[in-house]
Amino acid sequence: MAQRLDAQAPDFEEKFSALLGQKRDLAPDVDATVKAIIDDVVARGDAALVDYSRRFDRIDLEKSGIAVSKAEIASAEGRCSKEQLDALDLALERILVFHEKQRPQDLRFTDPLGVELGWRWTPIDSVGLYVPGGTAAYPSSVLMNVAPAKVAGVSRIAMVVPTPGGEVAPLVLAAAKRAGIEEIYRVGGAQAVAALAYGTKTIAPVDKIVGPGNAYVAAAKRRVFGQVGIDMIAGPSEVLILADSSANPDWIAADLLAQAEHDESAQSILITDDASLADAVVAAVERHLKTLTRHEIASASWRDYGAVILVRSLADALPLADRIAAEHLELVCEDAEALAAKIKNAGAIFVGGYTPEAIGDYVGGSNHVLPTARSARFSSGLNVLDFLKRSSILKCDAEALRAIGGAAVTLGEAEGLTAHARSVSIRLNSLGV
Amino acid sequence: MAQRLDAQAPDFEEKFSALLGQKRDLAPDVDATVKAIIDDVVARGDAALVDYSRRFDRIDLEKSGIAVSKAEIASAEGRCSKEQLDALDLALERILVFHEKQRPQDLRFTDPLGVELGWRWTPIDSVGLYVPGGTAAYPSSVLMNVAPAKVAGVSRIAMVVPTPGGEVAPLVLAAAKRAGIEEIYRVGGAQAVAALAYGTKTIAPVDKIVGPGNAYVAAAKRRVFGQVGIDMIAGPSEVLILADSSANPDWIAADLLAQAEHDESAQSILITDDASLADAVVAAVERHLKTLTRHEIASASWRDYGAVILVRSLADALPLADRIAAEHLELVCEDAEALAAKIKNAGAIFVGGYTPEAIGDYVGGSNHVLPTARSARFSSGLNVLDFLKRSSILKCDAEALRAIGGAAVTLGEAEGLTAHARSVSIRLNSLGV
Repeated sequence: MAQRLDAQAPDFEEKFSALLGQKRDLAPDVDATVKAIIDDVVARGDAALVDYSRRFDRIDLEKSGIAVSKAEIASAEGRCSKEQLDALDLALERILVFHEKQRPQDLRFTDPLGVELGWRWTPIDSVGLYVPGGTAAYPSSVLMNVAPAKVAGVSRIAMVVPTPGGEVAPLVLAAAKRAGIEEIYRVGGAQAVAALAYGTKTIAPVDKIVGPGNAYVAAAKRRVFGQVGIDMIAGPSEVLILADSSANPDWIAADLLAQAEHDESAQSILITDDASLADAVVAAVERHLKTLTRHEIASASWRDYGAVILVRSLADALPLADRIAAEHLELVCEDAEALAAKIKNAGAIFVGGYTPEAIGDYVGGSNHVLPTARSARFSSGLNVLDFLKRSSILKCDAEALRAIGGAAVTLGEAEGLTAHARSVSIRLNSLGV
Repeated sequence: MAQRLDAQAPDFEEKFSALLGQKRDLAPDVDATVKAIIDDVVARGDAALVDYSRRFDRIDLEKSGIAVSKAEIASAEGRCSKEQLDALDLALERILVFHEKQRPQDLRFTDPLGVELGWRWTPIDSVGLYVPGGTAAYPSSVLMNVAPAKVAGVSRIAMVVPTPGGEVAPLVLAAAKRAGIEEIYRVGGAQAVAALAYGTKTIAPVDKIVGPGNAYVAAAKRRVFGQVGIDMIAGPSEVLILADSSANPDWIAADLLAQAEHDESAQSILITDDASLADAVVAAVERHLKTLTRHEIASASWRDYGAVILVRSLADALPLADRIAAEHLELVCEDAEALAAKIKNAGAIFVGGYTPEAIGDYVGGSNHVLPTARSARFSSGLNVLDFLKRSSILKCDAEALRAIGGAAVTLGEAEGLTAHARSVSIRLNSLGV
């Protein structure tokens, strides 16, 4: 049973702060293990991958090969239903359309002093995509990570996926194929991250690694950051729903549980100005829970981290929502658009009762890789810019240098960097300045 | 004396790979120390800051106060020359103009199925700026970090700067004042990063920390990442110059040394198709070195990490330049513009003989906080987007949900996330689907 808070109660700030401060990410400290695995992959390459896969995934890569063959991918696709493949295709097309609009412009301009300035965007050359295996095998996640990279123009995408006992979800391989991935390796864990970062005989190194994973994968990504780029370190997922009396309590309950079923450390919060809606949602959650296949996970998440907060008006909910900075924010109320325009911190905003968060997970078109654990305060969901980098451009002619060079000499000298100053003054001197 | 490589030589690939693989960042492993300092600041707050400042900076914060007063800032400004303040003002104005052009657009559109999509950019609420003290006190760095934050609309910027022996460069405080910073604390090291991330009684916590620092600061930023956002972890700086026979060897030498004087692990590389230019540059470097104030640092950098690479044509230099992925790339040759358009990996490109890299450090207008140590392969210089975050927006009405909801149900069920599927199907059912 989720906790209930009343924003009018004298101890509310204390309870709300405690809610914000809750540690949901109970990942064990695996850093030492991960360091050893990475060092081993750097030293022994493919042989290390073979050993770890035998130990952790119960699979013999010497027999199966490290790379997944085209025939295997095609065969996996053949095992998916037409309905599933059609759903994948609809999702992929919509995700591509949305992300196409994120392509940034290059710029070049000449300022009044004659200095030319600008920048040029270029795609990252090669990207590694980590895809979890086993129970958390999500084809939608493959699409969400690949689409923005493709739109950015990344020419090489190498995917790694662990195959415990040799198994991989057919729809994951089908999603990869339809998204245009041709390079897939059946390795996972810290060893896969190490292979992508440093390369082995079979797996050429990449420039950036994206994709979710368990505690070992997260620790490995942190460790190889610098050697390669990484996306965010994903934490447990969360939804915040702001609802008023116009909301359907049964739908709100379903949305809270869609979040709660992810894992036991997921968090679902409802803020409402209607006490009877709160009661009805809580009751509906209990009803839904009984018939959910992931009953135990969802129950634990709702019990340990769920919360229902009563406010005087939804305007009062805004500062609370910004402090929660939820990964997903649903606005199910009369003035949802007005509220959406005022929210500062949220990974994605779902407006109105006909936009359950799950639409954004699959087929809305926006990205479902979003900042978790309050990081929407300072970061954004995955997007095309994550697969591009920008080189700034500066160009002076003699006149332009004459106009601004003196100030550079002054600042270089003030900073004690006299060679900086000289590199400018030597040119100014030649111009008779 | 820098090493010389010939791209035509049979052992070139081996030597070039070794050059790329050189470990220049010899920072000690201070992680355990840093963890203890952070824990202590979290536990004891201001009292810990007082203790560490006494120990590391030989200053009694109980006497001086943790915050730098407005009177101190004004007095520091009074000690700067008019020429210096004018140079700061020119730099700041130019940096602001350039970064204004980086402000991204919000988007909202309705697709053919009736789904509304879009995104909204909002500034990060509060940012902490780390400014190194002592010998590496760079007012230009204050401007480069603050300007994009101001353009983004960040409402609170808190600056920390260590003041060894109570000293802080007056021009650093003047730069902060002119850039609009009113909140400055005289603390540095890991303790300052901890205070910004977790807050103390005096220093309210921020959402993101930016700015360069030593090994302790870098390790602390890595540790607090997640609790707050951070910018890149800056490594040793580097310049790559591509030059042909049209280049002035004396100017090229000055530019190589402007990089080398930063610190002993800085790297300066020249690639040229003209052996006699190479000879002339090497000779000019030796001449310049004799009269540089930072002679020892620049000599050590040039000796240990400097390189001159001879290629058959500058077209051959392109793939090498992309592998080096230099922080700064100067193109001093006949077809500089054509080369600039082909470069894939570079933090900033300086086009033509009248654009020494130092212009970009101070007054060009582009940002001098740039990706180092080959990270231009996957990241970009500091910019306005680093101080914004984007919330995606999704809005379905009943018709739109009817059009795409079925595919979401299919994918949710395929992933075993039946509560996801239910949150959509419960609505579709009400629509008679």
